[in-house]
Formats: sequence, C-alpha cells, structure tokens
Amino acid sequence: MASGGDDVQVISNKQVILKDYVVGLLKDTDMYMSTNATIRLKVPEGSNGIVVKNLYIACDPYNLVRMKFSEKPGSPVTGFGVAKVLDSGNPNFKKGDLVWGTTGWEEYSLITDLQDIIKIQHTDVPLSYYTGILGMPGMTAYAGFYEICSPKKGEHVFISSASGAVGQLVGQFAKLLGCYVVGSAGSKEKVDLLKNKFKFDEAFNYKEESDLDAALKRYFPEGIDIYYENVGGKMLDAVLLNMRVHGRIAVCGMISQYNLDKPEGVHNLLHLIYKRVRIEGFVVTDYYHLYTKFLDLVLPHIAEGKIVYVEDIVEGLENATSSTNWDIFWPQCW
Amino acid sequence: MASGGDDVQVISNKQVILKDYVVGLLKDTDMYMSTNATIRLKVPEGSNGIVVKNLYIACDPYNLVRMKFSEKPGSPVTGFGVAKVLDSGNPNFKKGDLVWGTTGWEEYSLITDLQDIIKIQHTDVPLSYYTGILGMPGMTAYAGFYEICSPKKGEHVFISSASGAVGQLVGQFAKLLGCYVVGSAGSKEKVDLLKNKFKFDEAFNYKEESDLDAALKRYFPEGIDIYYENVGGKMLDAVLLNMRVHGRIAVCGMISQYNLDKPEGVHNLLHLIYKRVRIEGFVVTDYYHLYTKFLDLVLPHIAEGKIVYVEDIVEGLENATSSTNWDIFWPQCW
Repeated sequence: MASGGDDVQVISNKQVILKDYVVGLLKDTDMYMSTNATIRLKVPEGSNGIVVKNLYIACDPYNLVRMKFSEKPGSPVTGFGVAKVLDSGNPNFKKGDLVWGTTGWEEYSLITDLQDIIKIQHTDVPLSYYTGILGMPGMTAYAGFYEICSPKKGEHVFISSASGAVGQLVGQFAKLLGCYVVGSAGSKEKVDLLKNKFKFDEAFNYKEESDLDAALKRYFPEGIDIYYENVGGKMLDAVLLNMRVHGRIAVCGMISQYNLDKPEGVHNLLHLIYKRVRIEGFVVTDYYHLYTKFLDLVLPHIAEGKIVYVEDIVEGLENATSSTNWDIFWPQCW
Repeated sequence: MASGGDDVQVISNKQVILKDYVVGLLKDTDMYMSTNATIRLKVPEGSNGIVVKNLYIACDPYNLVRMKFSEKPGSPVTGFGVAKVLDSGNPNFKKGDLVWGTTGWEEYSLITDLQDIIKIQHTDVPLSYYTGILGMPGMTAYAGFYEICSPKKGEHVFISSASGAVGQLVGQFAKLLGCYVVGSAGSKEKVDLLKNKFKFDEAFNYKEESDLDAALKRYFPEGIDIYYENVGGKMLDAVLLNMRVHGRIAVCGMISQYNLDKPEGVHNLLHLIYKRVRIEGFVVTDYYHLYTKFLDLVLPHIAEGKIVYVEDIVEGLENATSSTNWDIFWPQCW
C-alpha cells in the first residue's frame, strides 16, 4: 500500500489473470494469481466510471464460454460480481453504494462500462444472492421461463441441468405457477436436491439413463410443453421426440457442447414441424428492463420461504484459479 | 355406369391407390391406378358430408410425407384438391359449389370430414390456383412469413427451395414489403425464374455451391433476419452461422431430410443463443382462420399483376402414379 503524489491511496490489487483462451476443459494452468498490480482508489479525472471493492464474484458456466472466446488473455478475468463503490465519477452511483454487474476477478476494479451495473436496493437478503437468484442467473431463469416460454398453469415443464443456479429457480417458478416439473442433473445428490429441497415433482440422473428418450417418456407420458434448455446435444434430440403440440423451448445454454471441437448434431428437428414447436435462444441482457418487475416477484417469495436457493461459496480470490474449486460450481450445473 | 336400385347414379371411379408406405424416394410401383371402384353420386342418408367431382389434385412435397407415415395403404391417396359439389348433406355446401381442401386422388370423392373444406368465392382466377397460391401453399407462405416471422421493411430474407409453390410466394410477399430477398433452388432454370419472373434480388443454385456458408456470406454480408426454411440439414446449419441478432426462422418443411433413414445432424444450434434467434415449426391448418384476411391481401395483388404464380399442370389422373411426372413437381421445390 502506498500513497500517490496527489494524496490518493494506491493499493496492491490481487488479480486472477487468464493466461490464454481456454481449450477444452478448464485446467489449473489456464489462470494464475498475480500480486503485481496496484490500483488507485480514485476515479480518473473526467471519467464517469466507478472504483469498487469486489465482494463476491460468480463462477458461472457462462464464464467458461467467455474464457474460450471473448476474454482478453493477460488481463484479469471478467464476470458478474457484487461490489461496493469506493469512488464514483457518475451521478447514478455514490461512495458506499452496493452494486452488481460485470466486474473483474480482482480485489478492486475500475469499472468504466456501467451499462449493466445495477445498484442494489434491497440488503435484507444475503449479498451473495446478487450473483445468483437476484442477479444474472435469477434474471435468466425469469426471462427464459416467463418471457420466452409463456407458461400456463398445469403445463408440463422439463429442465436440464436443473440443479444449477438457473435451473433450480426455473423449477421453483414453474411449481409456483402450478406446473408439473421434472429436472435432470448429473448426480444422486443433485437429484435429491431437486426433489427434496426444490420440490420438483420428479428428477433423474441423466448419467444413469442409457436411453434419454425412454427416460423422458417415463416422466412425461403425455409429452413436454416447456423445455428449459441448458445442455444441448443428445438431451435436446431426445426432448424433440417428446414435445407436445405448440411446445416451447427456451435455449439458455448448451453446456454439453461448449467443450467440443465440433458440436454434436441434432437430428430430430423435423419434430419442430410435426409438433409446431418454437425454439428460442436468448441472452439475459435483453431483459434487464424487467429487473424491477422480477424483484417484485421474487423478493416476497424469498421472504416467505417459498423460493429457496442453494449456493456454493468458497472464500478467497486465490481459490478461483483452481480447477478443483471450479468443479464445485460447474458440475452442479450439468 | 349403372343405376342403383334407388334410382341414384352409381358410377365407375378411377382411383390412385397407395400400395404401401413409401420408403425412400417415390417409385413407380408405390402407387397404381385402379378402375375397379364405383361411387354412388349421392350423400348417404343421414351423413352431413358432400360428394364431389375432383377437378385438380395437388402434388405437394407434403404428400410424400403423408405417403411415408399417415396415408392408408390400399386406399386412394389423399391430399389437397379443387372439386365441384355434386350432392350435399351439409347446409354449408350445395350442389354446384366449388370447394378446395383435402380430397382423394380419384375422380369422385365422398368427403365426410369437412373441417378443412373451404368454399371458393372468387372464380375470376384459374381454379387450379386453389391448389397453390390461393390454397394450402399460399396460406402456408402467408402464415409462415407474416405470422411466424413478423417481417419488417428492409429486412434481409432468405428462402430455400424458393421456386416451389410456397417459396415463390414468400419471396414475392417479402419484396412487396420492401425486404431484400434471396432464394436458393436446384437448377439454373429455377434460379432464372426466381430472378426474372419472381423478381428476387438474388438467387443461387445450391448444387453449385460447395460451401453453403460462403454462398450465404456472399449474398448476406450483413447477415439474415428471416429464413423461410423448406429444406433442413446442411442448409439450416449454414444459415445458423449467418443469422443476425433477433433473427427468425419459420420451419415450413425440411424436404432434404424426408427421404433419409436418419435425418442429418444440425451442428450450429449454439448460434441460436449467440444471436438470440427464434425457430418455429408450424402447420398451415392452425392459420385457416386467417384465410379471408389472406385473400384480401393476395387477390388484388394477383389482379394487378404484382404477384405472379407459376404452375406445372399435367392432365389425367393416371399420370399421378408416375414418378417421372412427380419429378416435374418435386424437384421444383428443392
């Protein structure tokens, strides 16, 4: 820690640096912790950015996609986080404000692109929730389910990667609406979580199913109205065989495909015609204007315990570089 | 020709009989002409059906799908046609009415399912148009383009199988709306038709393109807003790489796939997310309530010559069994 010539604090800033674009699965050597950087805890003259102390950073499946294609190697990883404003050159934010949005995997960040930085107004929930249920994953669940799928009471809903940050919420939204809800996940523990904690009607471990079509027919003898798609590939192919007339598929992610050199082929798209099915890909940022509406829906449900949320939290920025720790988060989703 | 005991005409009725479900491409031996049947030209007592003389029957790509899966082997082929009512047990139809809808590939039919039988009100156009531009293909073009794709002036529209009964209309609708329109087809003649007769901005012969992605990038350097999908498979995969943000794909058919034992895999569905693309399969019968609205749009355009329509007509029911004659119709579409 040192003081700048203009009497502004310049401080050491630990950072998680991406070495190069990730190829295949994440390795321990893809990122490293740097203690070389410093940061001036003051917004530069004329900038309308903010300087923040990062409190939580999210490890979302989305981060791996960024690390493969759109991050800047040699720079700190970026992603969603919760932070406290230390200094602001922007009239919308002031010192002491809590915010969530895209920040850096570092102790402190200067954020100049404030487009997706949202001020936290409700602090009677765990702040970490703003990386999850009240942040990007929550809005993703909300937009994909309500806006893309136009769900109706009594409809049959299937969610893949259902115990992930997004899936667990989609299932609970669907249950609150009076839908029949089934989720798939990749372990017995996650299946138990889905059935016992999140109160899905049914759940299954896709790794134990040699025939996904048969598994879906077992849980959806009358077919699927809504599929919340997180995985792609073989699961999508099996789902297409089981959609009902006028079914809807919200494509949130295809996590089974990101690590493949060539994505798997999906063969059953003819069923889009036979069953008049709509598939729609979406990104959550197109729906940020609905954030207040979303909070109005979800905050009371949290307060009343009608929606529960399970997080895995690891303390310490240095742990973010470890693929072992990443395994804590990611397999949760798939 | 013989007279029934109740003084009602019983008449010989030539029929095109489907031998068995079609496997792969249509063969000459899949259908045969039967001259054994007779028909009583009077609606049975108590029936609210109609007896018609069939004037035109359509050879649509859709027929092959039916012949593979849903026709009744040993019975006359069914499909869209134009017919004249000879007797009616239904208050909505009377002797002499002209109708279009699902009928049999035979000289005369007793139609008891009148759900999709529509009375022809406008006879100042060729009656055969009611198997095409003013019938199922026309409504298919209309529903897929206007209802599924929500087109806007200036958007970039791509149509595969563009010289077919549906595609040629979609392209003309899009041009009338002020869109940039490109079509693909399978021969030089069809490409010429698209450019010169239907006034597409561009057209190409997909058989001459070793790299469909490169071809699409040539014609759509800024990407595709709307894809009217008639073929599936490799073309869809290439289109997915070239969609613009918030693009829409109406899946009308996938004619390249119907003859395959296993449909080809489509690999680029991840682009649905990257570009927030919507794909929707549809069947025209869901849109029949818009038929009057459709006629209001299209009849003046026909009268003013702003929409043109090209038909291939072969005289004689006996010619329907010949795969050579079928080739006249089907390759037109693909």
